Amino acid sequence: MNDLITVRGFVASEITSSTTPGGTGTSSFRLGSTERRFDRKNNIWVDGNTNWFTVQAFRYLAGNIGCSVKKGQRVIVVGRLKLRQWEHEGKFYHASEIVAEAVGHDLMWGSANFIRTTSGTN
Amino acid sequence: MNDLITVRGFVASEITSSTTPGGTGTSSFRLGSTERRFDRKNNIWVDGNTNWFTVQAFRYLAGNIGCSVKKGQRVIVVGRLKLRQWEHEGKFYHASEIVAEAVGHDLMWGSANFIRTTSGTN
Amino acid sequence: MNDLITVRGFVASEITSSTTPGGTGTSSFRLGSTERRFDRKNNIWVDGNTNWFTVQAFRYLAGNIGCSVKKGQRVIVVGRLKLRQWEHEGKFYHASEIVAEAVGHDLMWGSANFIRTTSGTN
Amino acid sequence: MNDLITVRGFVASEITSSTTPGGTGTSSFRLGSTERRFDRKNNIWVDGNTNWFTVQAFRYLAGNIGCSVKKGQRVIVVGRLKLRQWEHEGKFYHASEIVAEAVGHDLMWGSANFIRTTSGTN
Repeated sequence: MNDLITVRGFVASEITSSTTPGGTGTSSFRLGSTERRFDRKNNIWVDGNTNWFTVQAFRYLAGNIGCSVKKGQRVIVVGRLKLRQWEHEGKFYHASEIVAEAVGHDLMWGSANFIRTTSGTN
Repeated sequence: MNDLITVRGFVASEITSSTTPGGTGTSSFRLGSTERRFDRKNNIWVDGNTNWFTVQAFRYLAGNIGCSVKKGQRVIVVGRLKLRQWEHEGKFYHASEIVAEAVGHDLMWGSANFIRTTSGTN
Repeated sequence: MNDLITVRGFVASEITSSTTPGGTGTSSFRLGSTERRFDRKNNIWVDGNTNWFTVQAFRYLAGNIGCSVKKGQRVIVVGRLKLRQWEHEGKFYHASEIVAEAVGHDLMWGSANFIRTTSGTN
Repeated sequence: MNDLITVRGFVASEITSSTTPGGTGTSSFRLGSTERRFDRKNNIWVDGNTNWFTVQAFRYLAGNIGCSVKKGQRVIVVGRLKLRQWEHEGKFYHASEIVAEAVGHDLMWGSANFIRTTSGTN
């Protein structure tokens, strides 16, 4: 199962697109997902903690993200969570990644004009 | 938790939009999701069973689905699964519904031009 | 992704265990999952619709379910949703199945004494 | 939706149980979840990256975890992902937490004797 997760959030960076040495297209962006809690005492919804992820996509999905997704937009991301940690020159680093299986604009927040471009096969 | 599910599938009907007596906008459509299995013997992916759902959306999400989603498109649907059964005049009926929290076009299959229209709050 | 779902519910039948002609052990049981909604007007949680599933398990998981899970217990089920429909002699039938990847007792409701029995590989 | 995730993994620490100043029982433990990938070239499953989480539970669930779950056991955890980062005296820290809604032993790996102890309500 590999820690599959669905996250609804906002795109917090420009899209970075690239090609691997093997010729596979890639795209990545920062995704923020802010917790919403119902405050029963005051009877309102309030913001909680924000989870930050780096979303990585490959092939057709990467290409369509590159020409469709912009900083500030609301999206749905489905993929596998990958939490990594490493040490370099005495400092510790970590990354919270989602290797995307699917990405789409969240139609709760706007409308979208969709144009089919690929057969969608891997 | 209420049986939250994320489904990637294809829109198999036109969108039906309406307004409840209380004035809430609604949209619904049929969603098909076909299982993909890796056939190790032949080293290829093959189609399996198709799950059929009726997706129901409300308020802002309903409005944006109505003007964005078309029959035949590939979408991501996040929502709560609701399986219902009832009897009417000696016959048994059932329905497999998803009450949608979020819907978006699946960018594995195409590109989308997104325009923000709402504040997105419920 | 194939419609992966996590359901928390109650075991509504005895466990049925069997062996396929090919020698694979199987177990199955009925699972009910009742929606809980927060009624803001009365400030209480109330029961909603109940989803009914037939859970099917294979191999090691089937064997351990057979000797661990009893009717009436609360469980967590992770697996792939499979909605099937067919016609037989003019009547229509349907089934809502979950092909289980993992099953466990829900420790919200009780304690459990766990004994490792298998290597867990498929 | 708040980043709900289902993780199957192994308990990598003893259980730490405590009581908040307000009198709420809590339990926490470290959870490791190792990615399994199918290596098509060699036709075998291989281990990939391990995700590490701190699982936190409250009330009845905390109590039952405290008397049921042991280091080294295989479990299913359902809950809300919470990724936090903070700075203290010039150093950066991070935590990958899951606030658990449900925890159970993974019956793929062993059998369990379950005893109901609570009404399960929050």
